[in-house]
Amino acid sequence: MKNSLSHYFCLDMGGTGTRGALLDIEGNELGRAQTGAGALSLGAPRSFEAIQGIWSKVCGAVGRNPKETKTVHIALGIAGYGLKERRDQLYQLLGDFAGITIGGDGYGALIGATKGAPGALISVGTGVGALRLDANGKTLGVSSWGFPAGDAGGGAWLGLRLFGDFINALDQIPSDRAIPETLIAKVLKITGPGTQDIMGWQRAARPGDFGRLAPLIVEGAKGGDDYCRHLLAHAARQICRVAQVLRTPDSNMIYISGGLGKILLPHCQKSAPDIDWRLSMADPVFGMFLLASGQAPEMQLLTRPGLIPRLN
Amino acid sequence: MKNSLSHYFCLDMGGTGTRGALLDIEGNELGRAQTGAGALSLGAPRSFEAIQGIWSKVCGAVGRNPKETKTVHIALGIAGYGLKERRDQLYQLLGDFAGITIGGDGYGALIGATKGAPGALISVGTGVGALRLDANGKTLGVSSWGFPAGDAGGGAWLGLRLFGDFINALDQIPSDRAIPETLIAKVLKITGPGTQDIMGWQRAARPGDFGRLAPLIVEGAKGGDDYCRHLLAHAARQICRVAQVLRTPDSNMIYISGGLGKILLPHCQKSAPDIDWRLSMADPVFGMFLLASGQAPEMQLLTRPGLIPRLN
Repeated sequence: MKNSLSHYFCLDMGGTGTRGALLDIEGNELGRAQTGAGALSLGAPRSFEAIQGIWSKVCGAVGRNPKETKTVHIALGIAGYGLKERRDQLYQLLGDFAGITIGGDGYGALIGATKGAPGALISVGTGVGALRLDANGKTLGVSSWGFPAGDAGGGAWLGLRLFGDFINALDQIPSDRAIPETLIAKVLKITGPGTQDIMGWQRAARPGDFGRLAPLIVEGAKGGDDYCRHLLAHAARQICRVAQVLRTPDSNMIYISGGLGKILLPHCQKSAPDIDWRLSMADPVFGMFLLASGQAPEMQLLTRPGLIPRLN
Repeated sequence: MKNSLSHYFCLDMGGTGTRGALLDIEGNELGRAQTGAGALSLGAPRSFEAIQGIWSKVCGAVGRNPKETKTVHIALGIAGYGLKERRDQLYQLLGDFAGITIGGDGYGALIGATKGAPGALISVGTGVGALRLDANGKTLGVSSWGFPAGDAGGGAWLGLRLFGDFINALDQIPSDRAIPETLIAKVLKITGPGTQDIMGWQRAARPGDFGRLAPLIVEGAKGGDDYCRHLLAHAARQICRVAQVLRTPDSNMIYISGGLGKILLPHCQKSAPDIDWRLSMADPVFGMFLLASGQAPEMQLLTRPGLIPRLN
């Protein structure tokens, strides 16, 4: 006898943090928790660990037995979705749940923003997820290639640029725009003071570690620093380029979300005023509920546009 | 009773390849061999493995018993020299040799170029080693911070830029300078054809893997491609910035070496004509012999110039 579905456990799993909530079948939220990074780039066991951590916390909060998963559908929007082997491995690890839905972390955010209707969203966190849901239910996804070359304009990308300018400053190598003393001191506090500390920090640094440098830039820009403002404007121009791929002749509206998305929005509006930029306040976790409960189409990713002519 | 020294075993260990030679105490080369990457960034066991591989080959070629190390002084110029813990670990692993000298991989190249006299050299391979030996025997070293933010202008840096432009092209994201079709096809041949192949390639890629993309750029530039020429000129400008730190009021002569150094030389001459650029044909392995045999000062690295005011 098949158990009837009683709950949805929905998660938004990025390169820096993971958030999850338990919802009833009508979408009422019963409990919510968060933990550290759970992106698939860190490996499926790490993703599974993050899921378990949230599951235990949420169950604790609502007085549930965490072993009772047979009537619960789990739905994850996860960074590094494209890593198929790891995704398959995670599927196996989640076998105790009644049903499993996995999509890219940007997809939950997209569906949340559009309520399952066609539209486009760029979510800017540690990485950059850029997706457009077309009227035929297919999804075009660009960016999100991962670190170190991809996700231009995101937190890890910003942090990597800051770190590059920081080490150049330590060598007194001339630069176009001087990195302020106060910022150098802040980065040194994170890496440690010596050459070997700094080299060791970089060697061990994950995308999330570079991403954690981005708030220093945001803070500096708020204080009016020219270097930081320039770096944020540079990031916004990368996001605007991505937006040029997502816009269609029918729609020039782009939702933007994520911790950095909100920060970059005014820069994007300035850099690409022809696009109708909208800040999405939607919850990616709720987007995953819409998806898992059949109120939005399953993610059917199109092949990257530039790959299509080369696959034949 | 102490064994008297009979031989020097000298190595140049980079992020892509390792070369080594056995020399007698007068510096006559008896045998030579090479193997893959042995940089300390790959871990001391890997470095040790590379050393053992070359030692066996060289011993085989000259008809020596590889177990007889008690009269042999080993001297390594190694990439990732700054990783002190790993360097100490490697020291332990090499305990069977009569004596051990370890310096940065650039130092062997510098000493080889100047024959132990004061002077400056930038070696451009997978990474960038930039060193100046001063009249007081101290060495100023800049760049060489490692991947992914450091070593601007080197092979891994070039490959990372190419890969970034490549994935943007697959997304059809607008760029300032279009990457040619033929180059995209060549990178796809290395990564594999699908989105997941490409993501997986990047995730697993070491600096040496990105460095192995650089020859595609060199080849394209030789064929007159504008994108590739622009990228090489960009790399050369990074090298010129490093040269501005190494030059002194007394000397504007800079040696350049390494597989990419030779390629970038004409671009550097064009970009910074006020510097007296010289191509070093010297052998870094022989530089390590000069060092180990006391004909050049031991490497005494100065603190990075930009760190000095911040350490107090």
